[in-house]
Amino acid sequence: MHRTRVKVVEGVLDANDTIARANRSDFDAADVTVVNLMSAPGAGKTTLLERVVADLGDVRVGVLEGDVQGSLDADRLASLHVPVTQLNTDPGFGGECHLDANMVRSALGDMPLRDIDLLVVENVGNLVCPAEFRVGEDARVMVSSVTEGEDKPLKYPLMFRTCDLVLVNKVDLLEHLDYDLDLFLHHLDAVHPGVPRMLVSARTGEGVAVWRDWLLERVAERAGAPA
Amino acid sequence: MHRTRVKVVEGVLDANDTIARANRSDFDAADVTVVNLMSAPGAGKTTLLERVVADLGDVRVGVLEGDVQGSLDADRLASLHVPVTQLNTDPGFGGECHLDANMVRSALGDMPLRDIDLLVVENVGNLVCPAEFRVGEDARVMVSSVTEGEDKPLKYPLMFRTCDLVLVNKVDLLEHLDYDLDLFLHHLDAVHPGVPRMLVSARTGEGVAVWRDWLLERVAERAGAPA
Repeated sequence: MHRTRVKVVEGVLDANDTIARANRSDFDAADVTVVNLMSAPGAGKTTLLERVVADLGDVRVGVLEGDVQGSLDADRLASLHVPVTQLNTDPGFGGECHLDANMVRSALGDMPLRDIDLLVVENVGNLVCPAEFRVGEDARVMVSSVTEGEDKPLKYPLMFRTCDLVLVNKVDLLEHLDYDLDLFLHHLDAVHPGVPRMLVSARTGEGVAVWRDWLLERVAERAGAPA
Repeated sequence: MHRTRVKVVEGVLDANDTIARANRSDFDAADVTVVNLMSAPGAGKTTLLERVVADLGDVRVGVLEGDVQGSLDADRLASLHVPVTQLNTDPGFGGECHLDANMVRSALGDMPLRDIDLLVVENVGNLVCPAEFRVGEDARVMVSSVTEGEDKPLKYPLMFRTCDLVLVNKVDLLEHLDYDLDLFLHHLDAVHPGVPRMLVSARTGEGVAVWRDWLLERVAERAGAPA
């Protein structure tokens, strides 16, 4: 019984990888750098995006907003006058808890890929399943809020192990919390040794310029790559 | 294609409900009140449990700890000298993002049901899928931290709609946040009108006695019910 179940799951992930490669091919053809942005609910993905999108200079950005229901985040980002496509997962299963490659693919028709340099895919707030589904991204950025405690890398290891950058958010609250930043970083390095990390505050803007520079470098790498 | 998929999912949920009823029957036979405790990662479920378990008087409690990996929370709770069973979901699918009735059932052999009055099932930190799977519980308690923002009931409606009590945690941080508690409660009532809610702080202990009394009432209801 258990064997059968595992086979089905492998089938799902195989199909996902096939579609992720098709997405990747479209992104390459349009010269778009794609970032998959992930976190627990309420860690600050959207507020960080609002901050950074307003500060990207000549780089043209688009956003694909994943949510179970509603368009609250897409509405916030659209006010920044960048192309935003909302992707709601609630038609499936009382709400899918993640984006997969096919969901992203279904939204690409509405996104003017030729007119942007950077596509940010804001995933559903969840530290488990989003890590299991590649969508064709160049890089995975995860946001971990200091209000969530130091133990999260140990409890959700796949998410922390498969990301390329960790934004440690809400550091403006550190002085009001019993949170041991060194212990968090120790756990992070146990799970993903040396992964780049930045201390940021979406609220005060602290560290957001460092993240912006990281994004600009990712975009520049693609521009400098042989066609 | 979509039709087929929905049928498969209904099959999964039907099977879950069948097993949940079997769990329920075992809980009834042993006169145990069962609470399914759910939240986003890092909202404070374990710390609230530590607080309340230490303050339940003569009521004998057991805890079933659900995590993708590790036993950090179970270790914390075991130090309170109550029966704790750890249930790790990582054998499936790179880590299941929720507990289902069968996972709970697989742990019941290790839990001395006849020797406890209250079983708390601490679910995997996730606001989506745990809401879709009944495990045989009497009541669902969800923890929503004020650090997560006011919009969560609108973004994760099934979770907020299917719970019997909302613990609004980390209220000790309110003065340091741009969080509008009235707006959160407005959104909560839009999704689940009149659901009981309590303001608590796992850190300071504020409000925990009110939650304790709510739990004691649930246990007393069962004791007073005809056999």
